[in-house]
Amino acid sequence: MDLSSLRGIVGEDNVRDNVAELYVYGADASVHQGLPGLVVKPHSIEQVSQIMAYANSQKIPVIARGAGSGMSGHAVPMDTKSIILDMKAMNRILEIKPDDMYCRVEAGVVDDDLNRALKPYGITYPPSPASSRIATIGGEIANNASGLRSVKYGATREYVLGMRLVLANGDIIKLGAKTRVEAAGYQIHRLIVGSEGTLGIVVEATLKCVPIPKYRCLSVATFDQLEKAGDTIGAIIASGAEPSMLELMDDIAIKAVNKTLNMDLPEVEALIFFEADGKVKEAVDHEINSMRLIVEQHGGTVTATSYDLKERTKIFGGRKKLFAALSRYKDGWACTSLADDMAVPYTQMAATARKIHQIADKYGLIMTAYGHCGSGVMHTKILMDPSKKESWDAAKKAVDEIYDFVDEVGGITSGEHGIALSKAPSWKKTHGDMLPVMTKIKFALDPNNILNPGKLQDAPDDWLTATKIRYQML
Amino acid sequence: MDLSSLRGIVGEDNVRDNVAELYVYGADASVHQGLPGLVVKPHSIEQVSQIMAYANSQKIPVIARGAGSGMSGHAVPMDTKSIILDMKAMNRILEIKPDDMYCRVEAGVVDDDLNRALKPYGITYPPSPASSRIATIGGEIANNASGLRSVKYGATREYVLGMRLVLANGDIIKLGAKTRVEAAGYQIHRLIVGSEGTLGIVVEATLKCVPIPKYRCLSVATFDQLEKAGDTIGAIIASGAEPSMLELMDDIAIKAVNKTLNMDLPEVEALIFFEADGKVKEAVDHEINSMRLIVEQHGGTVTATSYDLKERTKIFGGRKKLFAALSRYKDGWACTSLADDMAVPYTQMAATARKIHQIADKYGLIMTAYGHCGSGVMHTKILMDPSKKESWDAAKKAVDEIYDFVDEVGGITSGEHGIALSKAPSWKKTHGDMLPVMTKIKFALDPNNILNPGKLQDAPDDWLTATKIRYQML
Repeated sequence: MDLSSLRGIVGEDNVRDNVAELYVYGADASVHQGLPGLVVKPHSIEQVSQIMAYANSQKIPVIARGAGSGMSGHAVPMDTKSIILDMKAMNRILEIKPDDMYCRVEAGVVDDDLNRALKPYGITYPPSPASSRIATIGGEIANNASGLRSVKYGATREYVLGMRLVLANGDIIKLGAKTRVEAAGYQIHRLIVGSEGTLGIVVEATLKCVPIPKYRCLSVATFDQLEKAGDTIGAIIASGAEPSMLELMDDIAIKAVNKTLNMDLPEVEALIFFEADGKVKEAVDHEINSMRLIVEQHGGTVTATSYDLKERTKIFGGRKKLFAALSRYKDGWACTSLADDMAVPYTQMAATARKIHQIADKYGLIMTAYGHCGSGVMHTKILMDPSKKESWDAAKKAVDEIYDFVDEVGGITSGEHGIALSKAPSWKKTHGDMLPVMTKIKFALDPNNILNPGKLQDAPDDWLTATKIRYQML
Repeated sequence: MDLSSLRGIVGEDNVRDNVAELYVYGADASVHQGLPGLVVKPHSIEQVSQIMAYANSQKIPVIARGAGSGMSGHAVPMDTKSIILDMKAMNRILEIKPDDMYCRVEAGVVDDDLNRALKPYGITYPPSPASSRIATIGGEIANNASGLRSVKYGATREYVLGMRLVLANGDIIKLGAKTRVEAAGYQIHRLIVGSEGTLGIVVEATLKCVPIPKYRCLSVATFDQLEKAGDTIGAIIASGAEPSMLELMDDIAIKAVNKTLNMDLPEVEALIFFEADGKVKEAVDHEINSMRLIVEQHGGTVTATSYDLKERTKIFGGRKKLFAALSRYKDGWACTSLADDMAVPYTQMAATARKIHQIADKYGLIMTAYGHCGSGVMHTKILMDPSKKESWDAAKKAVDEIYDFVDEVGGITSGEHGIALSKAPSWKKTHGDMLPVMTKIKFALDPNNILNPGKLQDAPDDWLTATKIRYQML
């Protein structure tokens, strides 16, 4: 690789090739680990364009990277010649237009930073994932990210009005509009959302914003049986209630939080958190009360309800810190993101949670069932001793069985975290008829296959051997 | 063409080639007129697949047609060998799942029929366009349709969770999911929405539904100046209000309704209709009152407000029948859909309406400014004597000037009615960088260019000579 060409584009300091740095950029929040050839940090759209033109001429793989908080391996390079395009320096908020209800940002803007900047105008960009403290808008677009409030506000795809995209060959194109509706040519920007960096580099996005709700009320309820909690979720949705959040935590998640964080959540089979928001208190009351009634009809007990931010933060504390708690569940054990974000129809929520427990038991693993059940998302984590080859073999079998079940009940491999490497084998099994079309679109836009190659439809058929695993196996 | 092959697929009765029928299928609600070679009416996905395989092998153009209510020429054949695929027989509602908040339908289902079927379950499919009485779901998807309530509920693209698509070569593929969120491979279904029948034939769709609001309150206000009405719309949106409808009617529209339908709307410079909906009356009251205050601050006078369906129907009567009124504005004159659905930022609404009037005056045409301004959509119609060549030449100049202005203020060629033929010349001027990418995607999916050829990026550069005009010119 001709480093001087790239240094000529972005400057000496913004091209890194020392091994220590490359190592850091070889992993993300998934189980995978690779090693890139270079890290390049562009500061403008024109630089991205020039980098792509160069990479395309040399057929060098390019992987755009935001925070590296992806859980399926999106940002892990499959080829040691790869350029990691570190987008974090492109972090300018270009326009905030509260009167037109949109904002325009560079791809490296961090989600929480954007929402902090929008707040004084009374508006918000709502599809934020749990990692919003570090996640960049570009990464969220690549992954069609969503989070806690997607039951009411939807995912990233609902908010991307337009974008500027750098194509594989370096061409810069403008897509979409600034208006609420649009019917003006292929909605390519909607195809780019969720394409995991394989079709182009998102450099700028025009995002729909919504008013910040004035009131927010959160309740938590206990259930002595997981099935009752699952049925409650289905019944709340079926009732026409419009929660702004509807979260499940199973007994393993509860125990994890209590044990590692010294919390005192009630050790029942399941907790449900339900929230409503809005600008009129009567309406929020109405939603919360309707949901409370359904909870009680299904044998749940509401143990706390509050409008107050401080109290809400306390109520939600256990759920908020769950991921951290699971990571510290057992000394030496790892909390892995495998089969961790399936989406299933609401009516299948309870059965899916129970099935996950059965499969975990069968293979001697610890698995939780929790998540944004109001949007159909069932989160899990597989806790295991990562140093043992047997743990990984067991995890692999468990993952396969979980996905088979999810497919059986009409669910889908990934609701939130994307496919990339970890989810590709199972996803490919159930999406066979779609893969040739994806491949055709991919090659139409990236004929040299330089944009994040080896992911999605091109990912290896076994996630366990797709890359090195980033835990040390004995 | 070998009729026996097609008759073998769909049966004798479902292949029509007599000229009288072909003539009817040569036009839609646009100004354009063509003539197809055949009309074929499939009754199943398998039949569509076989028809496409045959057409692809013979390189015969295929144009899927729903109600033919498109206003830009989507369903008008450009080649006399074309097959019109009449989708109206595929009109089964396959699933209604209120507990999972979705339904699954064949593409030929009529929008109002679907909503009638959903109603007993307390749910609705909200992006309905004004033509919902006849428009099919397949046509709405092809066009990314939206309507009166898009300011709150958005467009078709926000509701298509998944679909079955027949590709140009006859392959049948399944796209998307049944769940609220999804991050499982390219969102090809979102690309198909708005692709105007050029990438595949949508045969089945899984659609997100929402609860029917319990309360709906509509107000109407008069303004002595169009600018004040325009500014009010911007101020309502900027205030964080969440109208379920926000409509403008200018003086020409008011006069048209009064004159042709014997109504007695106040002959002011502008009317604004504003509506709120929800399940709690206090919240609806709050929205209506907030908007009323803004109206009054901007010099408007609220003349009626009602929750009652019958009264609301009466209040909205003039706006509802506007299109019919414009069509009968002057004996022998036509109401043409040209430059009829631009979208502009809210802050540009008043200026755009005024500009339309100026341009109409300049060219001796009659043009209204009205529409779903809450979503940024500015509707117009050009009223003229269609028998005179000069009218069309004037219309062409007016259209060009309007689109230049819309582009200048950050708006877009089409918010609702799509590009097809009528809007293609202006749209191509402003979307030059996107066209090569569209062409690449098009040829990746339809290498023989048989799916609705000659539209969008491939449309002729002059709409006036693109096809015959369906009015008799003297």
